[in-house]
Amino acid sequence: MSTARTPPIYTSPQDVTQAFYQAFETRDIDAMMATWAEDEDIVCIHPGGIRHVGYESVRQTFDLLFAGTAKLTFRLDQVVLLETVGLAMQSAIEHVEAGNEGARGTAVATNVLMRTPSGWRVVCHHASSAPAVTDVPAAGPLH
Amino acid sequence: MSTARTPPIYTSPQDVTQAFYQAFETRDIDAMMATWAEDEDIVCIHPGGIRHVGYESVRQTFDLLFAGTAKLTFRLDQVVLLETVGLAMQSAIEHVEAGNEGARGTAVATNVLMRTPSGWRVVCHHASSAPAVTDVPAAGPLH
Repeated sequence: MSTARTPPIYTSPQDVTQAFYQAFETRDIDAMMATWAEDEDIVCIHPGGIRHVGYESVRQTFDLLFAGTAKLTFRLDQVVLLETVGLAMQSAIEHVEAGNEGARGTAVATNVLMRTPSGWRVVCHHASSAPAVTDVPAAGPLH
Repeated sequence: MSTARTPPIYTSPQDVTQAFYQAFETRDIDAMMATWAEDEDIVCIHPGGIRHVGYESVRQTFDLLFAGTAKLTFRLDQVVLLETVGLAMQSAIEHVEAGNEGARGTAVATNVLMRTPSGWRVVCHHASSAPAVTDVPAAGPLH
């Protein structure tokens, strides 16, 4: 059986988050939306932006974002992953670079992944600007 | 058997998020930390702040926050809840009011809850400033 033209099945939370950021970098709207659950309760928040709820609203915000000229690249740092059989959370520091101007920024992202009958899918992407990239206690290391 | 002095058991994601915001409003650090999983991978991000990872780091940020004079009150709006047997996600618009000055603000929050042997606990609170409180498509309602 050919799997051409059918959406990919992501077999783990890591697989779907990798595909999510790859689609973000290549500005591929179909690949991006194939990583999201087709659900009215999915949530997407870009840094400084409003909350988008539902598949159509999430598609619109990525359509708008991908229509711009800035090619973004992401490097994830300090990744935390909590996983259960049906839902998983990934927290990460996003180092973002806008290719055209070379502008760099740092954001903190919370991604929530859900296991659906069609594999793991994104149900929440919440990214916000971060003032610092590390989480070092001011008073030095604790015992 | 008395349950005095033992941490409460939250039997649902809703119970623990309600206790979380109640502890936030009353600035009760013990009640607040009783809502969190005692885990090195818990994550807390306040609007505009750095990411805090781990129980001690999360406790420190709430200690610092509660040491201030501003009494905060929260009203949650447009709540979305996704729940599985072991993990749940709550997304909400937070209308925050600082009692002393009467200052108001709006944030968007992603809370992730996990079912532990001690009941449901918070594993992630990610709040960031929101530019708008509604999610109305610019072009009017869709079919």
